[in-house]
Amino acid sequence: MSERFEPQRPGVDYGVLDELAGYALRRAQIRMTEAFDARLGAEGITTQRFSALVLIDANPGLKQTELAAIMGIARSGALAIVDALAAQDLIERRPAPGDGRAQALHLTDHGRSRMPQIVKLVRAHDRDLTEGFSADELATLRALLERIRT
Amino acid sequence: MSERFEPQRPGVDYGVLDELAGYALRRAQIRMTEAFDARLGAEGITTQRFSALVLIDANPGLKQTELAAIMGIARSGALAIVDALAAQDLIERRPAPGDGRAQALHLTDHGRSRMPQIVKLVRAHDRDLTEGFSADELATLRALLERIRT
Repeated sequence: MSERFEPQRPGVDYGVLDELAGYALRRAQIRMTEAFDARLGAEGITTQRFSALVLIDANPGLKQTELAAIMGIARSGALAIVDALAAQDLIERRPAPGDGRAQALHLTDHGRSRMPQIVKLVRAHDRDLTEGFSADELATLRALLERIRT
Repeated sequence: MSERFEPQRPGVDYGVLDELAGYALRRAQIRMTEAFDARLGAEGITTQRFSALVLIDANPGLKQTELAAIMGIARSGALAIVDALAAQDLIERRPAPGDGRAQALHLTDHGRSRMPQIVKLVRAHDRDLTEGFSADELATLRALLERIRT
């Protein structure tokens, strides 16, 4: 199948990777992330920081371990993301009610005031990702992605 | 659109993430990675270590900075992957010809002897990812993924 797909970089031999559906998925994700960074990098927002912001906004009091589980990343990764967002004064840690050791995550007032603009930029980025897709193609892509390993 | 997609975890509000094609992609990638780890974890192989192994095998003498660029990851991430694969005696660093400071990456003899079994496990994992997909659906998925931001 590899002849159907242009390598991302000329001169690089992708070997068996070109034959794997999982790597086609990964490659699309690499391009998605690069496009996201191009649009949101100046805001200090990465794809993972954005996911964490939305999840904390929608689930106030979320714990760091829960955030890691939802995002499918290691606890150390979640810690780095939470540290970065806290350093940007977008979120804050508060003691979790009924569990003195755990910390609950919340958006700061500054974080809440920044969200509309950040979400607007991400929506524009997301529309660009699938520019030229018909509504049917977009629905098909989403339906097929949902069926992967489910 | 969010009502069309079951959240991965009951009780979690995914907010705007449910509306974004980019997050549908990310979510599929999370499931893919979890399935990969379940199958290859005992071998000490992650998705990124596998990608690096294949790329080094197919492009002997690849430099670490090139590996990072091809994989779309930070140099620090590529360093961690290369360190892990070297500690497993699967790859080795050699001085790059004509550039004393740069290091060229090569599979070790042990790495080469391990590759057939690793590739076999990954191919089985990859088939499982899209189990139940017809050949047409698989081709459609790959074609739509290729069109994302290209």
